[in-house]
Amino acid sequence: MSTAAYTLILLRHGESEWNQKNLFTGWVDVDLTEKGHAEARRAGELLTQEGLAPDVLHTSLLRRAITTANSALDVADRHWIPVKRSWRLNERHYGALQGLDKAETREKYGEDQFMLWRRSFDTPPPEIEDDSEYSEAGDPRYAELGEDLPRTECLKDVIARMLPYWDSDIVPDLQAGSTVLVAAHGNSLRALVKHLDGVSDEDIVGLNIPTGIPLLYELDADLRPVERGGRYLDPEAAAEAIQQVANQGKK
Amino acid sequence: MSTAAYTLILLRHGESEWNQKNLFTGWVDVDLTEKGHAEARRAGELLTQEGLAPDVLHTSLLRRAITTANSALDVADRHWIPVKRSWRLNERHYGALQGLDKAETREKYGEDQFMLWRRSFDTPPPEIEDDSEYSEAGDPRYAELGEDLPRTECLKDVIARMLPYWDSDIVPDLQAGSTVLVAAHGNSLRALVKHLDGVSDEDIVGLNIPTGIPLLYELDADLRPVERGGRYLDPEAAAEAIQQVANQGKK
Repeated sequence: MSTAAYTLILLRHGESEWNQKNLFTGWVDVDLTEKGHAEARRAGELLTQEGLAPDVLHTSLLRRAITTANSALDVADRHWIPVKRSWRLNERHYGALQGLDKAETREKYGEDQFMLWRRSFDTPPPEIEDDSEYSEAGDPRYAELGEDLPRTECLKDVIARMLPYWDSDIVPDLQAGSTVLVAAHGNSLRALVKHLDGVSDEDIVGLNIPTGIPLLYELDADLRPVERGGRYLDPEAAAEAIQQVANQGKK
Repeated sequence: MSTAAYTLILLRHGESEWNQKNLFTGWVDVDLTEKGHAEARRAGELLTQEGLAPDVLHTSLLRRAITTANSALDVADRHWIPVKRSWRLNERHYGALQGLDKAETREKYGEDQFMLWRRSFDTPPPEIEDDSEYSEAGDPRYAELGEDLPRTECLKDVIARMLPYWDSDIVPDLQAGSTVLVAAHGNSLRALVKHLDGVSDEDIVGLNIPTGIPLLYELDADLRPVERGGRYLDPEAAAEAIQQVANQGKK
């Protein structure tokens, strides 16, 4: 039995406007719904109840993760902690699917192609065109990426761009003794969970992370989870929400 | 006529619950009122209208400044920029006056003592006791300060602890070419304006900075204001609000 050395808290953003509308979102910078804002505040209450006090926050560059973290930390009286942001924590880029209705896409392309795009480990959707209204070409927040700006991603791509940030920025904070909060997205967090728990390429695509419920990982000195899969601070709500995510795209 | 080399935007937080109640606030970590939240969003609109896009945010460790910045940047679509926080941008510590009603304090101690505490450059109020409900002793956000934690401050003290941060953290961002947003407080911003404009110790105590209206300073290569006093993005609202601040403490 290994001993907890480090404390990591993962938080997927609350429900977004496009979660609600059942659209592929990816890097499109949509806002939270009222329910999403409420989930964020509830996440802050759960942190407080559990006595978890984040010392540092890592977020993506997307509003739904940033707002969720701001709101949760405000409720938890930790609004003042240092913040680091990176595009490497962004949601998976959904390519040409960004902005499309999930149910319509399923109908148009058929179940097999739909599930391949949604759940394949290494098959990305078609690339988004730079002149699409949902392209990030020209967005100043990604200017540093230049030609490396993703135009589509599969989960394997997300892992490849997320893990360097884990190593360079999150692990040092953990090793400095900080309780680290990572506020991010379904797929960037799935990528991290895959790494932490050693989930296979096959199994990770079936793993869903619900919105707005803090997921606590206590890690041992070798950064391995003391408890595989971590622990949701509201396990019942998490179980229910995981089932709902699994139903997305069904009419 | 000097030429603008650097862009600095100062933003005092929107109206707080204790601004509204007319209490001495200092380092007490109160929230914004509804009006304060609206002022913050309006500040974001003003930035957008002016075509000002902050590249980096500096805030105090106090909720009213942090929330104001979060909200303004969200409206201005700059929620994703890097953030740095420091206690050195906090409001002036109001010592034993924290939590007291301004009008009652004026009545109890008389006009001269009241104005000395509010407006003297170098006379701090009495120190707050560590067991006061409004003391920050034991607050984890100030743990690094140890015995240097302020128990009271005059404006001179604020300048002495703010300027090192200006030099070490804000100036380098300006010199790197970033448009810098500083979200802070009446007295920490007054300290900065005193430094930038070379205001005398006598004159600075009569200078009021209104809540929620971005104040733009274009600085030349020597970090001197191109236009003394800068420029409020809503000059009429600023003039009106400055008059209101001057009336605080009057019944």
